[in-house]
Amino acid sequence: MNKAREFDQSVVADLRALLGDRVSVAAAVREHHGKDESYFPYALPDAVVFPESTEEVRDVVMICRRHRVPMIPFGVGTSLEGHILAVNGGVSIDLSRMNRIVAVHESDLDAVVQAGVTRKQLNEHIKHTGLFFPVDPGADATLGGMAATRASGTNAVRYGTMRENVLSLKVVLADGRVITTSRRPRKSAAGYDLTRLFVGSEGTLGIITEVTVRLYPVQEAMSAAVCAFDTVDGCTNTVIETIQSGVPIARCDIVCEKTIAAINRYKKTDYRVAPTVFFEFHGSSASVVEQAQAVQAIARENGGMDFQWATRPEERTQLWDARHNAYFAVLQTRPGSRAVSTDVCVPISRLAECVRESMEDVKSYVVPVPLLGHIGDGNFHLVFLIDPANADELALAKKLNKRLVERAIRMEGTCTGEHGIGLGKQESLRAELGDDVIGVMRDIKRLFDPDNLMNPGKVVPAP
Amino acid sequence: MNKAREFDQSVVADLRALLGDRVSVAAAVREHHGKDESYFPYALPDAVVFPESTEEVRDVVMICRRHRVPMIPFGVGTSLEGHILAVNGGVSIDLSRMNRIVAVHESDLDAVVQAGVTRKQLNEHIKHTGLFFPVDPGADATLGGMAATRASGTNAVRYGTMRENVLSLKVVLADGRVITTSRRPRKSAAGYDLTRLFVGSEGTLGIITEVTVRLYPVQEAMSAAVCAFDTVDGCTNTVIETIQSGVPIARCDIVCEKTIAAINRYKKTDYRVAPTVFFEFHGSSASVVEQAQAVQAIARENGGMDFQWATRPEERTQLWDARHNAYFAVLQTRPGSRAVSTDVCVPISRLAECVRESMEDVKSYVVPVPLLGHIGDGNFHLVFLIDPANADELALAKKLNKRLVERAIRMEGTCTGEHGIGLGKQESLRAELGDDVIGVMRDIKRLFDPDNLMNPGKVVPAP
Repeated sequence: MNKAREFDQSVVADLRALLGDRVSVAAAVREHHGKDESYFPYALPDAVVFPESTEEVRDVVMICRRHRVPMIPFGVGTSLEGHILAVNGGVSIDLSRMNRIVAVHESDLDAVVQAGVTRKQLNEHIKHTGLFFPVDPGADATLGGMAATRASGTNAVRYGTMRENVLSLKVVLADGRVITTSRRPRKSAAGYDLTRLFVGSEGTLGIITEVTVRLYPVQEAMSAAVCAFDTVDGCTNTVIETIQSGVPIARCDIVCEKTIAAINRYKKTDYRVAPTVFFEFHGSSASVVEQAQAVQAIARENGGMDFQWATRPEERTQLWDARHNAYFAVLQTRPGSRAVSTDVCVPISRLAECVRESMEDVKSYVVPVPLLGHIGDGNFHLVFLIDPANADELALAKKLNKRLVERAIRMEGTCTGEHGIGLGKQESLRAELGDDVIGVMRDIKRLFDPDNLMNPGKVVPAP
Repeated sequence: MNKAREFDQSVVADLRALLGDRVSVAAAVREHHGKDESYFPYALPDAVVFPESTEEVRDVVMICRRHRVPMIPFGVGTSLEGHILAVNGGVSIDLSRMNRIVAVHESDLDAVVQAGVTRKQLNEHIKHTGLFFPVDPGADATLGGMAATRASGTNAVRYGTMRENVLSLKVVLADGRVITTSRRPRKSAAGYDLTRLFVGSEGTLGIITEVTVRLYPVQEAMSAAVCAFDTVDGCTNTVIETIQSGVPIARCDIVCEKTIAAINRYKKTDYRVAPTVFFEFHGSSASVVEQAQAVQAIARENGGMDFQWATRPEERTQLWDARHNAYFAVLQTRPGSRAVSTDVCVPISRLAECVRESMEDVKSYVVPVPLLGHIGDGNFHLVFLIDPANADELALAKKLNKRLVERAIRMEGTCTGEHGIGLGKQESLRAELGDDVIGVMRDIKRLFDPDNLMNPGKVVPAP
């Protein structure tokens, strides 16, 4: 907060000359932009701007660059590793007004959107086309933010993450150049893959202002079910065997009995309180029946009870809405708490072992630690609810998370399946990939942002 | 060839001290490594080395670096844009002896292989597991080469290209550091996507020595068919409608009547001489039948004749073997010729138009120009057969190819779907993505290879 006092107010004057009243230094606005969904303390920007076009973003970048002021792109602030915190002060560039759907190419199965369009907005917009966009993190995040953090969600097991579903990006570089990283075709061998260099770069290499994404035909049949199990092991083993059998399952997410109880309270549902897998099958009518039969047989052998089906679209939506709200439901179980969400991902052969050891380890935490996750990808989350007033709880949660990350890395896993590095995982990234890789990443950061102004302090340590 | 005379023979002495007789300066060996499948003239390396481990590659890199000598990684020499030509002389690093399959993780559906393992070798090795690796360029290329060129093939429409199927790479950097770009899990949000930065970098940023790839379960049913059409338009429209309908087709490749005639002669097959689509369907028995019925209905409406089925594994293999050999079959139609293969890829809505205009345009070439391609991705090839002794033919082929690339770019397409940039497409890359993107790519090249020793002269102009 000290940085605010040192902040050069002529920056604000320049920004005002460009954007008029779409520049704010109000405390409430700065607070809103100095906090995400994570446990990290507030780190307020000195000003917040609301550009409405790529050109305006470029002009903001030029002003910030001239004044050597940090720039932090902001979508809706739902990231989980402190990505949007203004740790060195500076200007938060709120892209939420860049919410125009630029083009939907129905016959090419793609769409071009401004960075501030949210995933739900896009899906609502294209509903009538019979197409959908599959990547679905818990929150209704912006597509720019999702690209920047390489987000995924419940559909990734079948449709991939943002890595696979971004075809091209428009990016404002630190020196004000605006580039389009690729053309729209499905595939290309045209030079270095700049698209994927920016996907997951968390605003540290440039500011994404436009995203071209893949769309998919809504399948003839989509059918969802929940299945309760005796044990978490039963859940994980069912999913592992399903993946290995080649059933093209669209979604398979786990929630533990604590999570399902929280969902029941939060969403007024009445799912059986037991370790549970949420399934979804996409395909032709016959193929969906086949897939479901195959998975039911696997589940039965692993202690699964009857499938509880949701076949009508509104039932399906309700079911996955319940799953998407699991994080928020869990937060409600300890009013006033904040969450330290873990996010490891391991090769699927190690999943059962990793989940089992981790659940055992977190029993020492002060309150029960719920489990949820996209286990078809080997990705799961344990959520530590902390009392923000109690530093010991945060310290304990961080210690247990560190052990979890070490365990995942020991099992050839990664410290983050989908939440990203941000502020919170930089040492884990080093443990995972080694000093030389961190060195290469820092070199790339320095190349794109020699003055360390693009979301400084995130992903890799400052040069 | 002049460069050979200037070559510092002490490099060879140093290489011999390291590798003994696995260093060659024999003319025949250098010639073999100074020519790929393209129309480019020979550009011989001064020496060829045959390392057997990542450590040996690193030591070779350190020697070349000390002597400031170019290094060109070499797989089996099947690339099509002059990628492996030693245009500045130097040392060709032949990775074919690094052909060990390091690990097959059956339950994780992945495999770790040395760069010199070929796609057929891997598939043969894992046959008994019920898994397969889908990416299949025409030639039996090495996985290191395929990663380096971002190769794809007939299965890409369903399974993706090397971009989607490489999980991690081991890479020797220009300064001798050896990095592993990622862990093995299916997804990760851990920092910049170095894996995909090296996929498609064509040996210009580092030397890939190990590749971790995704594997897929062989589906319960796999069934292939060919279908002849009245017109090429009938083929393209069938495939466009199939993709748009969401049928999860595994393969759909086009060949024109000239190509099918060449295949018939080369492989002693008796396919009807007409524009033809090769199809393949993967899934459960019921779903394969459904998919085939849906596609047959679409084909019929577009002038398709009866499907000619290949259901037994050996028939399927034979059918796709015929398709894979189309390029070589076409070469045989003009003995002694070499090929200038084009490789554009457009959004699928523009495919029919692009193919139609292009076929019309190439009618002015000296001999008929066959068409083939992976049209499910919007990717097709027109093959100009040139008499190497006749410079006018090469000039005309290049002129027509340039027009084709311009046409594809005008239709929001890319200058290369799968062959890469190499020597031949650098100006096309600039036309496609613009000066600023080329500038960024050159900066990346300079960062990774400040002395311009890693496959110099490829992808982007020298810094």
